[in-house]
Amino acid sequence: MLVSVCRKAHFNAAHRLFNPDFSAADNERIFGKCNNPNYHGHNYTLEVWVKGPVDPQTGFVIDLKILKELIESEIENRFDHKNLNLDTREFKTLIPTAENICVVCWQLLRSKLVPALTLTVRLYETERNVVEYAGD
Amino acid sequence: MLVSVCRKAHFNAAHRLFNPDFSAADNERIFGKCNNPNYHGHNYTLEVWVKGPVDPQTGFVIDLKILKELIESEIENRFDHKNLNLDTREFKTLIPTAENICVVCWQLLRSKLVPALTLTVRLYETERNVVEYAGD
Amino acid sequence: MLVSVCRKAHFNAAHRLFNPDFSAADNERIFGKCNNPNYHGHNYTLEVWVKGPVDPQTGFVIDLKILKELIESEIENRFDHKNLNLDTREFKTLIPTAENICVVCWQLLRSKLVPALTLTVRLYETERNVVEYAGD
Amino acid sequence: MLVSVCRKAHFNAAHRLFNPDFSAADNERIFGKCNNPNYHGHNYTLEVWVKGPVDPQTGFVIDLKILKELIESEIENRFDHKNLNLDTREFKTLIPTAENICVVCWQLLRSKLVPALTLTVRLYETERNVVEYAGD
Amino acid sequence: MLVSVCRKAHFNAAHRLFNPDFSAADNERIFGKCNNPNYHGHNYTLEVWVKGPVDPQTGFVIDLKILKELIESEIENRFDHKNLNLDTREFKTLIPTAENICVVCWQLLRSKLVPALTLTVRLYETERNVVEYAGD
Amino acid sequence: MLVSVCRKAHFNAAHRLFNPDFSAADNERIFGKCNNPNYHGHNYTLEVWVKGPVDPQTGFVIDLKILKELIESEIENRFDHKNLNLDTREFKTLIPTAENICVVCWQLLRSKLVPALTLTVRLYETERNVVEYAGD
Repeated sequence: MLVSVCRKAHFNAAHRLFNPDFSAADNERIFGKCNNPNYHGHNYTLEVWVKGPVDPQTGFVIDLKILKELIESEIENRFDHKNLNLDTREFKTLIPTAENICVVCWQLLRSKLVPALTLTVRLYETERNVVEYAGD
Repeated sequence: MLVSVCRKAHFNAAHRLFNPDFSAADNERIFGKCNNPNYHGHNYTLEVWVKGPVDPQTGFVIDLKILKELIESEIENRFDHKNLNLDTREFKTLIPTAENICVVCWQLLRSKLVPALTLTVRLYETERNVVEYAGD
Repeated sequence: MLVSVCRKAHFNAAHRLFNPDFSAADNERIFGKCNNPNYHGHNYTLEVWVKGPVDPQTGFVIDLKILKELIESEIENRFDHKNLNLDTREFKTLIPTAENICVVCWQLLRSKLVPALTLTVRLYETERNVVEYAGD
Repeated sequence: MLVSVCRKAHFNAAHRLFNPDFSAADNERIFGKCNNPNYHGHNYTLEVWVKGPVDPQTGFVIDLKILKELIESEIENRFDHKNLNLDTREFKTLIPTAENICVVCWQLLRSKLVPALTLTVRLYETERNVVEYAGD
Repeated sequence: MLVSVCRKAHFNAAHRLFNPDFSAADNERIFGKCNNPNYHGHNYTLEVWVKGPVDPQTGFVIDLKILKELIESEIENRFDHKNLNLDTREFKTLIPTAENICVVCWQLLRSKLVPALTLTVRLYETERNVVEYAGD
Repeated sequence: MLVSVCRKAHFNAAHRLFNPDFSAADNERIFGKCNNPNYHGHNYTLEVWVKGPVDPQTGFVIDLKILKELIESEIENRFDHKNLNLDTREFKTLIPTAENICVVCWQLLRSKLVPALTLTVRLYETERNVVEYAGD
């Protein structure tokens, strides 16, 4: 029996959407208000879904305390109360769109989970904008 | 890398569930309070999920401003503050159940998206009743 | 010790904002999309707050089962799955704005509560529009 | 056309996570605060998703009133305001983790649905901990 | 200038509503399902509102880290993952209704705040049942 | 009859908590992670509550379209997708704590409303941190 379990987490960060290969006019046209040179920010909510067999001894797919600590060490400590463009190695050259942040979170967590577990990451940038990545 | 992105939208509409081929007793038994001849209404919340590759130049699957405008022109302008049975072409003969509204929204949006993008539409009719259609 | 207790309820209804004393142009200007002659609708959420002393024998301000039944008999049975303009006595001539619906709900509940209890009613018409009436 | 429909339900229950085959130290290490001998509790929220063809006569995949009654008879009457470990047959020997509760809910509902309908059950134990089972 | 600030917290607990001075029939009639001898439980959400002047040096009414730690030490450590009737001194003889839990939380926090700050505590027992106490 | 009406709005902004009169150590001790020199950010949700008499001709306390436009012109255009410390006149020297942002929003809106209307502003900085100002 394969069950999915989810743990939610939060981080608050500043970012700017900007591609140095684009002209100023293109950055403005494509990224709009998100191109503000002085940054803006969001409360990001992360849902980390892990799918795998239920351990008959514990009734757990994964101990959620362990998953919580993994999200703290890999994601929250890295991104919470940070400027994604300036303070993180991951977004030095990668544009911190919701899509790219979601994929980066997936990669950071994937490398720490045993292969038997399937991983899906969902990221809420605002109440109305959400992205999801499952490794496809 | 295939990422899903979602944009939420809202529309408020009146409707009535009623099949003219059914007897009055059958309409009452099957549709209950939703069969009220003078209509009732809902705040519909729509989640439009689009899945596709991330453009390495922009970090976007699809510009959410474009998706937002598409939902406005195709869905909100058509259904918001309308009586679905009386004011729309789509539900002149099709019963506006949540299932049918969801499928119609999917069809209206599907025809405007490039084939490389996968579309899933989720519709909340109330806090407790939700439907989803992915083109299956 | 005076404690407030709240019970939430829901009703789904159709309505139209329209004043027969106004010209068509004024109705359009003032009520906009809400003036649609064929009605539109909402999922209304009602919060009923009752404030009073805690009974030392039960630990209750008011038994919430009794408050729940009162809301069902006075509000839900009257307004749920109804067209407020056509199907209710209360809004035959009173415009069913959120403000007026909230005041009417307060009056219907106030008449059924003992004077020692203070009543406040909050009504959510959409996620973004809320009204509250406390008898002032 | 295959559409998914969802009905949400709630039940409030007490439980304890504990494996009699483990030492007291292991129960403490593995289940932490959830091992409290006097139990603790949760407001569980259940999402029951049923996928199937839309009946062209009714516009329904399944009448949500029927799904609501099925959840009441199979899940709410069994688990609401109960101590899962002491008051239910299902968790006499099975540890009532969110994973196991979700699988049990799925099994109880699966046996009452026609084979043409696909079933997925999602269970929220807290705002931050969620599990899902689809019969895999 | 007097500003209110709020910090939310959560605790999950088991409880039973029961008055030993009442007959079994009266306990059943008054407390219904909440009278289950083996307990049931809830995810309680607490909103702690503190009102006072804004410190012009810090821009704070109260440092929310300090308020968070106060809620942890006074409320969460005392009630989280506990059986309120069996594991706490506060509800050994006081019936743990939402009203009484809210008043007790207010008293525990009030004694730790300077008199210049006004305190209001709101407690959500379920999504639909809420209580509030402000010291009246 | 005095009724309160509320309109919700959102803005996403970057900020830093920092007092130039404090030592680096004091800024760190008092503002913690919020003192990050490169800024962080939030999705701010604003609830604007206006209390006044119901106009018997329209059933409105205030036309919510007008209130919505007022919030857009006074608050959203000023603060949305901005760095509060660098891009706004209001927080050039005032520390942009939630308390101060809330008071500034109240002042900006107060000056545009007729005296007969009472104003309360509530600001959500995160899901767990909220502030409110009513002009006291």
